[in-house]
Amino acid sequence: MVESLDTAESNFRPLVVIELAKGTKEETIEWLTKRIVDKKANGGAQLLIKPLVTENGVENIYLVGASHLRLLLGAEAVGLVKECSDNSMRSFTYSSRKTFKHFADDNHNFLTMAECQYIIKHELENLRAKNEKMIPGYPQAKLYPGKSIVRRLLTSGILVQIFPLHDREELKKLSHSWYGRVKVGYQPLDNIRCYFGETIALYFGFLEYFTFALIPMAVIGIPYYVFAWEDYDKYVMFATFNLLWSTVILEVWKRICAILTYRWGTLLMKRQFEEPRPGFHGVLGINPVTGREEPVYSSIKRQLRIYLVSLPFVCLCLYFSLYVMMIYFDLEQWALDYHQENESNFSSLMLYVPSIIYAVVIEVMNRIYRYAAEFLTSWENHRLESSYQNHLILKVLVFNFLNCFASLFYIAFVLFDMKLLRQSLATLLITSQILNQFAESLLPYWLQKRYNRRMKKHTCSKKTDMDLSLAEQVTMEKEMGTYLGTFDDYLELFLQFGYVSLFSCVYPLAAVFAVLNNITEIYSDALKMCRVYKRPFAEPTANIGVWQLAFETMSVISVVTNCILIGMSPQVDALFPDSKMDLVLTVALVEHLLLAIKFIMAFVIPDKPRDIQMKLAKLEFESLEALKQQVRAFQMQLHFPLSHH
Amino acid sequence: MVESLDTAESNFRPLVVIELAKGTKEETIEWLTKRIVDKKANGGAQLLIKPLVTENGVENIYLVGASHLRLLLGAEAVGLVKECSDNSMRSFTYSSRKTFKHFADDNHNFLTMAECQYIIKHELENLRAKNEKMIPGYPQAKLYPGKSIVRRLLTSGILVQIFPLHDREELKKLSHSWYGRVKVGYQPLDNIRCYFGETIALYFGFLEYFTFALIPMAVIGIPYYVFAWEDYDKYVMFATFNLLWSTVILEVWKRICAILTYRWGTLLMKRQFEEPRPGFHGVLGINPVTGREEPVYSSIKRQLRIYLVSLPFVCLCLYFSLYVMMIYFDLEQWALDYHQENESNFSSLMLYVPSIIYAVVIEVMNRIYRYAAEFLTSWENHRLESSYQNHLILKVLVFNFLNCFASLFYIAFVLFDMKLLRQSLATLLITSQILNQFAESLLPYWLQKRYNRRMKKHTCSKKTDMDLSLAEQVTMEKEMGTYLGTFDDYLELFLQFGYVSLFSCVYPLAAVFAVLNNITEIYSDALKMCRVYKRPFAEPTANIGVWQLAFETMSVISVVTNCILIGMSPQVDALFPDSKMDLVLTVALVEHLLLAIKFIMAFVIPDKPRDIQMKLAKLEFESLEALKQQVRAFQMQLHFPLSHH
Repeated sequence: MVESLDTAESNFRPLVVIELAKGTKEETIEWLTKRIVDKKANGGAQLLIKPLVTENGVENIYLVGASHLRLLLGAEAVGLVKECSDNSMRSFTYSSRKTFKHFADDNHNFLTMAECQYIIKHELENLRAKNEKMIPGYPQAKLYPGKSIVRRLLTSGILVQIFPLHDREELKKLSHSWYGRVKVGYQPLDNIRCYFGETIALYFGFLEYFTFALIPMAVIGIPYYVFAWEDYDKYVMFATFNLLWSTVILEVWKRICAILTYRWGTLLMKRQFEEPRPGFHGVLGINPVTGREEPVYSSIKRQLRIYLVSLPFVCLCLYFSLYVMMIYFDLEQWALDYHQENESNFSSLMLYVPSIIYAVVIEVMNRIYRYAAEFLTSWENHRLESSYQNHLILKVLVFNFLNCFASLFYIAFVLFDMKLLRQSLATLLITSQILNQFAESLLPYWLQKRYNRRMKKHTCSKKTDMDLSLAEQVTMEKEMGTYLGTFDDYLELFLQFGYVSLFSCVYPLAAVFAVLNNITEIYSDALKMCRVYKRPFAEPTANIGVWQLAFETMSVISVVTNCILIGMSPQVDALFPDSKMDLVLTVALVEHLLLAIKFIMAFVIPDKPRDIQMKLAKLEFESLEALKQQVRAFQMQLHFPLSHH
Repeated sequence: MVESLDTAESNFRPLVVIELAKGTKEETIEWLTKRIVDKKANGGAQLLIKPLVTENGVENIYLVGASHLRLLLGAEAVGLVKECSDNSMRSFTYSSRKTFKHFADDNHNFLTMAECQYIIKHELENLRAKNEKMIPGYPQAKLYPGKSIVRRLLTSGILVQIFPLHDREELKKLSHSWYGRVKVGYQPLDNIRCYFGETIALYFGFLEYFTFALIPMAVIGIPYYVFAWEDYDKYVMFATFNLLWSTVILEVWKRICAILTYRWGTLLMKRQFEEPRPGFHGVLGINPVTGREEPVYSSIKRQLRIYLVSLPFVCLCLYFSLYVMMIYFDLEQWALDYHQENESNFSSLMLYVPSIIYAVVIEVMNRIYRYAAEFLTSWENHRLESSYQNHLILKVLVFNFLNCFASLFYIAFVLFDMKLLRQSLATLLITSQILNQFAESLLPYWLQKRYNRRMKKHTCSKKTDMDLSLAEQVTMEKEMGTYLGTFDDYLELFLQFGYVSLFSCVYPLAAVFAVLNNITEIYSDALKMCRVYKRPFAEPTANIGVWQLAFETMSVISVVTNCILIGMSPQVDALFPDSKMDLVLTVALVEHLLLAIKFIMAFVIPDKPRDIQMKLAKLEFESLEALKQQVRAFQMQLHFPLSHH
């Protein structure tokens, strides 16, 4: 039975590609392949591996696959959660496989391809050194018992990359239903999840949700532009709606996120123990948690690096950014003077130049700072990938926030110039959106397209994408760019949320632009994922993590800014003709009330819908019952008599 | 081996007392005792039970105990966490019992008496009906499969009470080391925990910690009184220190709480599945989570009761409380007028009368409202005890907050009378402290003492407490009051925290009074626990729950009030001679900065100390490893060969 499941070479399905450096020593390759195919009992990964033979001969590229049985056992090891026949979600185990929906021993589609690739990645990364002191053939690439072999190969440059293969047919189906036709409707999130994994599907889910959530704001915002409403009471209404609405949408997102990730099984997935990230280095020592030998780096040293180097550097950058902003305002003043001196079409065009230059400079500064932040955070030597990511996100967020919004704050609360604020906001928002769309998707797509055309000309074939041989497919995909994660995509949304909410009572049209941008963003991001980049490995996730906090913080800040803006308006001013004091006190009172309502709302709206809560409770109850049953069975075994009165 | 552990009647140790109603039918008693002693396999609790024989004959009082082995198995069932020989904390299981510190088959002190009593309570409460349709002898006391027998007996009045027995010797030791001698030092928290359980020990831990944390404030506050400092810059400094300090102490408490509960094992204890609370009623139906038959009550009906009845009622009470407050201010004004008309010793004494009357009225209103809140919350028919408690706490907190602080807010922010504020604050604080100490401990102690003396006279014995026979001890203890939980004690601390922090820049001496009160509070509460009340059942807990949130909310509110008070002071006023506007804006800016610092501090300070984090990570790692090992072992069993290239 079990043997019959085993895959002969005939139905070897390539899932993951391993590219070794050119000129990698024969003994290294032999050792690595042996470790990969070796039995679990001998410390191997028990996977299948095949060299890729192209027209140019063997190129140090290997295809990794696994038998169906191996993948099922791997699914158990990574803790995959699947749907059972009774519609409940449960951790998959091989012994209970028959209870799962759509499971059949001959149904090789029970696990999606993305899941299979995730399992293989997990197994490869968990291939650990036994007694090897170094990678055979490379004495400088040290190993110690328990060190992940693949990570050492990556850091020592022997392994160029590992990436999962695209499935041309699936991809075509997916891209057709996703962005292939112009239609009004939801994205095929479940299919995206099956193909790209949960992290990416959740990003697209959030993008879609956020766009829908902005529509009410956009709809209410349009008449302000059309009828040129300048009544402040209308602006006040709009801002108040905006503030409460932004709280509601963030709370409701948590519920939708729970629904999605429950359906995908990641809400129930147990957190795996985190291994040190690949770049982590230190003196060999004993990890107090695992008791294993691994590099150890003192937490105090790291704290010193963070507070004595990174923090001052970030502050310096923030100062520099403010300095650049002041230059921008000088330029702006100069342009205004110029316009007033010689009124012409050219001079009125010149009025927009400083803003555009500033927007471009901001983009450039952001990108440079980003490299510095990555370098610094990597130098801080965090042990865990999650801690690395959090420190990186924090650094980048603070800088981006200042860069994008400092000038607007300055205009609003120092210059008190609402007209300039509206104009700057519009310019910044639109410029940055266009730049982003261009730099992020269209440019890489065009480059990729050109490269492919050259490649095809080179191999002088007239085949379409679908007819490519495996070798050609691999050669093409390995040259594609690597998708670096959802960070930049979320950051863009975060800044957009800032533009929309921070000064919403001054420029109600921002929501309209945001909605328009997001609709094209969905298409360009989808294009990027399907056509521009290598397929990324699926990453299970249960929520959007630190971004939820970032968006919530932004919505708290926007309460403050909007209240001040409304208080500063001449119309509201006119309501308190006798005493400015009363005005300020009223504004402060309203602000505190709004903040209190926000916190109470966040507290009262449950994070998970009732039916998900019930399902989770049911699972917890069952596991507790099972435990109790065990205890009871054990007690019965003992079978001891009790005397009683 | 196992049999030798079994307890013969000779070493029956009474742990828990069950008091049945006078005239309970013979068949009911027989059925109940049978169920209690019956084997687990037959659905019994497998405990030991003995009727208490007093001088007056059998009185329907039963003593429950259990064999050592039974208790150990019970400890596993309730998920008790104990310390291992290698100093790590682990869930106790009978099969791994040898690895635990101080475990020996003949060491009957491995489990503390409080733990044994908790286990027995748990086992009794989990004694469930099988096929009984009613309690034998009481056709109106309906049962259904799975219904807790003890809870039905309690709600139908057949079972008067269940309570754990005091251990006279232990109690004497404990009370001696706790409050028996006047000493400077910490309370014996670990001993308190062993005797009274974690919830009560944690309350005393918090009380002690809070008192220590107030000392710096008190020390800084004293010179303000001694030197009659009236400089506002000093008040500003004091208030700023106070605000940051209150954030720090609340964050640090979480860490200390983690240290304590890790040591006590409750931090690691798995949450048990919550059964419906005893008072919960409804139509018999199927619980969607458990699939068991139990009363079902529609959540919508409950929401309607909450929002249409409870909420309006609470609002009405709040309005009434404000109305009473206005009367108080009229009285106050009248007293002032009277004093100004006829200046005499009597009239100056009269000045204090309204405040004192008001404080007394507040206390009375609080107590009446408390009963109403309990009735309403019980009528809302919450399924879970925790949800009942949360709704009750919320109702009581809001009312108490308004009752205690509304008059102060009125004086501060409507009358702008700082002198009156200081005087009212002092009067309210001191009066309520004295009233509380009296009503809570001294009065019950005195009543108890008198009752005991009468009892002893009645049995005309000259024995001391230590020599009491078991029968006499039980008869005495069953008449003692029941401790209703830590709610009132925490509430008192919460209100005290409000007095100290909300107006700290006006009355720095509040902290001094709070410290003095808390020192006596420790003694009077200890006295109350040891001498006045029945021994309560131990309740495992990992934190102070909703009170942490309540204290944090209070500290946020106090930032707002203090900033306003400082802004209103004439000295700060004098700093901005030209523009009141600048003053208000500066105050608002400082307030927002302080709030931001508070939130960042709460975010940056880790909730658990590093070593506890490491220990928890280690445990998590071990359990994940164990799981992996299981998967691996299973894979090896399959032993399938994999072909490779």
